Amino acid sequence: MTTSVAWLAPICALIGMAVAAYLGSWVLKQDPGPEKMNSISVKIQQGAKAFLVSEYKMLAIFVAVVAVVMAVALSPWTALAFITGGVLSACAGYAGMHVATRANTRTAHAAEESVARALNVSFKSGLTMGLCVASFALFGLSLWLILLVFGNINAVDLMHEHVGMVEGFATGASAVALFARVGGGIYTKAADVGADLVGKVEAGIPEDDPRNPATIADNVGDNVGDVAGMGADLFESYTGSIIAPTILAVTFGSLGYFAGVDLVWAVVVPVVIAACGIITSIIGLFAVRTKEGASLHAALNRGTYVAAVLEICAIFAIFFLWNSQSQEGQPLWLFGSVICGLVAGMLIGKTTEFFCSDEYKPVHKIAEASETGAATNIIQGLSTGMLSTIVPILLVAFAIIGAYFFGNMAFPLVDTSEGGIAVGLFGVALAATGMLSNTAITIGVDAYGPVADNAGGIAEMAGLPEEIRDRTDSLDAVGNTTAAIAKGFAIASAGLAAISLFVSYQATMHHAFPDFSLTLTNPLIIAGIFIGAMVPFMFAALTMGAVSQAAHAMVEEVRRQFREIKGIMEYEAEPEYDKCVAISTNAALKKMMLPGLLAVVIPIVIGCFSPEMLGGFLAGAVSTGMLLAIFMSNAGGAWDNSKKYIEKGAHGGKGSDAHKAAVVGDTVGDPFKDTSGPSMNILINLMTIIALTFSPLFIALQVLV
Amino acid sequence: MTTSVAWLAPICALIGMAVAAYLGSWVLKQDPGPEKMNSISVKIQQGAKAFLVSEYKMLAIFVAVVAVVMAVALSPWTALAFITGGVLSACAGYAGMHVATRANTRTAHAAEESVARALNVSFKSGLTMGLCVASFALFGLSLWLILLVFGNINAVDLMHEHVGMVEGFATGASAVALFARVGGGIYTKAADVGADLVGKVEAGIPEDDPRNPATIADNVGDNVGDVAGMGADLFESYTGSIIAPTILAVTFGSLGYFAGVDLVWAVVVPVVIAACGIITSIIGLFAVRTKEGASLHAALNRGTYVAAVLEICAIFAIFFLWNSQSQEGQPLWLFGSVICGLVAGMLIGKTTEFFCSDEYKPVHKIAEASETGAATNIIQGLSTGMLSTIVPILLVAFAIIGAYFFGNMAFPLVDTSEGGIAVGLFGVALAATGMLSNTAITIGVDAYGPVADNAGGIAEMAGLPEEIRDRTDSLDAVGNTTAAIAKGFAIASAGLAAISLFVSYQATMHHAFPDFSLTLTNPLIIAGIFIGAMVPFMFAALTMGAVSQAAHAMVEEVRRQFREIKGIMEYEAEPEYDKCVAISTNAALKKMMLPGLLAVVIPIVIGCFSPEMLGGFLAGAVSTGMLLAIFMSNAGGAWDNSKKYIEKGAHGGKGSDAHKAAVVGDTVGDPFKDTSGPSMNILINLMTIIALTFSPLFIALQVLV
Repeated sequence: MTTSVAWLAPICALIGMAVAAYLGSWVLKQDPGPEKMNSISVKIQQGAKAFLVSEYKMLAIFVAVVAVVMAVALSPWTALAFITGGVLSACAGYAGMHVATRANTRTAHAAEESVARALNVSFKSGLTMGLCVASFALFGLSLWLILLVFGNINAVDLMHEHVGMVEGFATGASAVALFARVGGGIYTKAADVGADLVGKVEAGIPEDDPRNPATIADNVGDNVGDVAGMGADLFESYTGSIIAPTILAVTFGSLGYFAGVDLVWAVVVPVVIAACGIITSIIGLFAVRTKEGASLHAALNRGTYVAAVLEICAIFAIFFLWNSQSQEGQPLWLFGSVICGLVAGMLIGKTTEFFCSDEYKPVHKIAEASETGAATNIIQGLSTGMLSTIVPILLVAFAIIGAYFFGNMAFPLVDTSEGGIAVGLFGVALAATGMLSNTAITIGVDAYGPVADNAGGIAEMAGLPEEIRDRTDSLDAVGNTTAAIAKGFAIASAGLAAISLFVSYQATMHHAFPDFSLTLTNPLIIAGIFIGAMVPFMFAALTMGAVSQAAHAMVEEVRRQFREIKGIMEYEAEPEYDKCVAISTNAALKKMMLPGLLAVVIPIVIGCFSPEMLGGFLAGAVSTGMLLAIFMSNAGGAWDNSKKYIEKGAHGGKGSDAHKAAVVGDTVGDPFKDTSGPSMNILINLMTIIALTFSPLFIALQVLV
Repeated sequence: MTTSVAWLAPICALIGMAVAAYLGSWVLKQDPGPEKMNSISVKIQQGAKAFLVSEYKMLAIFVAVVAVVMAVALSPWTALAFITGGVLSACAGYAGMHVATRANTRTAHAAEESVARALNVSFKSGLTMGLCVASFALFGLSLWLILLVFGNINAVDLMHEHVGMVEGFATGASAVALFARVGGGIYTKAADVGADLVGKVEAGIPEDDPRNPATIADNVGDNVGDVAGMGADLFESYTGSIIAPTILAVTFGSLGYFAGVDLVWAVVVPVVIAACGIITSIIGLFAVRTKEGASLHAALNRGTYVAAVLEICAIFAIFFLWNSQSQEGQPLWLFGSVICGLVAGMLIGKTTEFFCSDEYKPVHKIAEASETGAATNIIQGLSTGMLSTIVPILLVAFAIIGAYFFGNMAFPLVDTSEGGIAVGLFGVALAATGMLSNTAITIGVDAYGPVADNAGGIAEMAGLPEEIRDRTDSLDAVGNTTAAIAKGFAIASAGLAAISLFVSYQATMHHAFPDFSLTLTNPLIIAGIFIGAMVPFMFAALTMGAVSQAAHAMVEEVRRQFREIKGIMEYEAEPEYDKCVAISTNAALKKMMLPGLLAVVIPIVIGCFSPEMLGGFLAGAVSTGMLLAIFMSNAGGAWDNSKKYIEKGAHGGKGSDAHKAAVVGDTVGDPFKDTSGPSMNILINLMTIIALTFSPLFIALQVLV
């Protein structure tokens, strides 16, 4: 029976976990270097662990409360699935960070030998994280699917009922991800901005200088933000991209739209694609080998490309198999949908590179504007960020239309536009799955960056020779470029997955109320669009405000230590690192709650009031959420690199007035690209999945009224 | 016959013109002061006139090309109406600016006598502008209505056909407004930023110092941006708010939705409300008298309130009359719709005040963040601006729902939701009309600000005693607060008018294709929403980039003059003011074309491709356009006032590090609040009205395919 293919998913997930365990233990077995280095690493480990434990404690309360609400309002099973989603996400983040905070000193020590060895250590640490994220997510998800959904594959209505568990799992993953991203983002940027403003600008000491009291907090921040936060982020988008087509298929099936289509295949295909992705990622690992002197960039790209080509072949094979067994329709066309998504994701990555890399005009223009001061630097940077939204949004729009077109080609016989929903949208959902199927290796390429960054920090603090620092810097720099493509995929797939979930929401409501429709001339829907479009602005305002205030407190503390602790500057007294760590920890924990809660509560409140309004709300939120995500990430990246471009000698180089102006831009860009911007994808996915999960409640309330 | 009431509109418009002529000639008869002052004013006059003439020449070409396209694609009459809309808008702007550039020195001279006299001169100059704008708009509009629409009041289909002329008129007004706002905005901010960056920051000379080569350009900018640009802006929003309910009524009538409603009343009421507004504004003038020592604020508010109360009474009377003659429905309920709009507008104005005034926490927080440098000032300012969108958007959403509710109460018998459109939306359209009906006096209160500002500049340049400058500054400061309420009305009414026009677009397409619907699950519509949401970002990027580049050129020129012309600093040589004027003029003319053209071309291209997609496009554009309008205006205002707050002595006062950081924020805020932000309302209105005007073309193309 075809559903047995679904068992591939947990099996591949278990393989992924085994490989992750092997890689992780290999990393831990490496030599952490002399005590001077390891003791710094231990400080970072302690700070990161302390933060994560406090964060998880707060999240546990939140998860428990929501689970109780879910158990009462929806079903105990949904509540349980919600808890598993949240717990697995937290475990993946914890495991990844555990290895990363130990890989830093090992990478620094390996760099004393060669860049190739340093790459090996840091990349394996990143891939451990990547495999944990993908395997944990796929394992939990596929078990719920197999136990509850596929178990009822021949009873469509029962299956539709049970799909709520899968939604619960995804809600748990998204909610934890939002808190982890926002909390980690506030932590890391408060420390970073604070450390830079006093250390670099006022005291004139270099980055990661051990005399800077905020330097440990800064390095802890890299781990809790860029490692744990990013892991939770991708856990949720990966989950979202897999469940989107599954839920859509089940919903369409229950509405009778998919009559004639082999529903078993439709619901099984997404997890099978994901399962193949774990295996191809592991194969990709073997391609990332480099010899001393060879291009690091080429090595990493080789890994990504090998995995990608294999995965595309696997996806083609899956559709081909489905096609050969299909009675009606030609599912092979869906391969076209996947290709649309992949092409859009690639090109979005390229535009990110164009707008953020110091090899192109946009960054040069910001650098030039820095000559007339910080104000023109900021204006030019904001303008660049906004301009950079044009092409990605057009690409997403084309991907939607293209994937939909192929979806329609796949099922021409059953394409019914009843209730305004077209079955071709299934293709849009699968495009998102395809883009994120190689998440494991993508994270590997992404998460090794902060490890290398940390290694550099340790090298600096332990007083290793300049040369070592240069080696870790070169590793870090390569990571920034490769990460751009991953970012493109993340943004595009978030948009497509959100749309698919949105359509599932509409289909679910339509299932309950046949005259339910989302027409743009309904005043409630217009009002909903306005409010929804506003929420990402509110979210960005709260998270940026949090960074600004926490950084302010950090600056005051660092200034106080420089003033009151005699001998810091002469290396005679050690600064009180833990006070700065405490400031970041407390600020992050305190300030992450409000934006996170709003994201959960607002859709539920609006949905209880009017399910139509919630439809408009989601459409508005997804569109401005994507815009702000692109705008803020790219503006931040462009500011960062225009500063680096000046540091390379342009417009007067380091220390010039232009450089001072560029530092202001870079600092403004910090919360843009590492706090508010990356939270947007999670925000829109979370709000959409919450609408879907709570739709039974909205239906029940409407029936009551 | 009831249509004869419509003649009230051109008659009141003529009265308005006569009063404007009287006030204008009164201003010009005042003593311009000694030659030293007048010669500065003459320079400003020349610069402003030269810019406007060049701008109008370029616009003439644009208007001619579009008119030809319209004549071919739509009808020669629509083209002619388009030209009249554009020409009348330009005339109103020119007349207002002619008086304003002469009122400046007269206000400065009057300030030597007393503040009360200075207020009298500057306010009368502002009101001249306000009456020109309102009268010209209402005159042109009502003639088209009377000749073509009301002439066919008993042949609904013919009337529907002819409503295209009215749309053409509004398109002309909106297109000219967009160019005037963007061009004027780039001009004034390039000069302002340039003058400040070199003059205040580098050379350390005060604002408006005659030694600054950019100072004349700066003062010209106040006139072409804040006077002529603002006038064209309000010309278009005033026009839009009047035609929105008229077009909706005609469209509903042609679709048969309004069966039973007295269609004559429905189409006549908006112009009659506007006609009353001109008269009440004139009466309001008499309330703006102040004695020396009395509160200026109270005087201006008295004028606004007297006019507002009278206008509300007039609106009530109009609905009461309609109600008494109505066979079906109770039009008096529509008064509730108008009140919803007014309340929302008032409260939005209050939130603007809360976020931008230096009496409240948001501005204090930005000032506090300035202590840790420019970066935290910028982050806090951006965060504040984004936060300030929450309440206005909620208020607009409530106003829509409330106005719709009362609209439904008014016509319960004919409320049909056929095709998804509810007749109650007529109430939403009327709410916009009510909000802008007192435009004449609103502009008066707004446009006297730049006159007072210019008067201060002339006082400074002519070396008048400090006391005179203080008097004009106090006038200017009051203007800033009173303008906040006007801004609230402009934003809210733009949103409501755009929605009404949007619904008219949908109804028009529905009239042509009965199965035309805008459902949110149609992939084309989703793609349309994404692209539409992106356009305001693109527009902001282009206009901000233009300011950044023009300011850059200005800075280089000012630096060059300081370097090359010996003796400027010692008052021995006069700077070359005209070179700076030329830079602003050329930059504005060159850079205004692209954003303006895109706003016109994009909706037409999308509409030709898919009218459904255009529907989604408009929904996306209106929502992010409103958000960016509020965000950018408020962030700019908050930055400005946090700088002023520091200058009053907080956080170290003038010259402190916090002050330097605040100057950066203020400079970033300049294009936010005076270039990009205020163009957003025009942008969304223009794109919506273009969709409506060109709908016959889209229909013809669809029929062909």
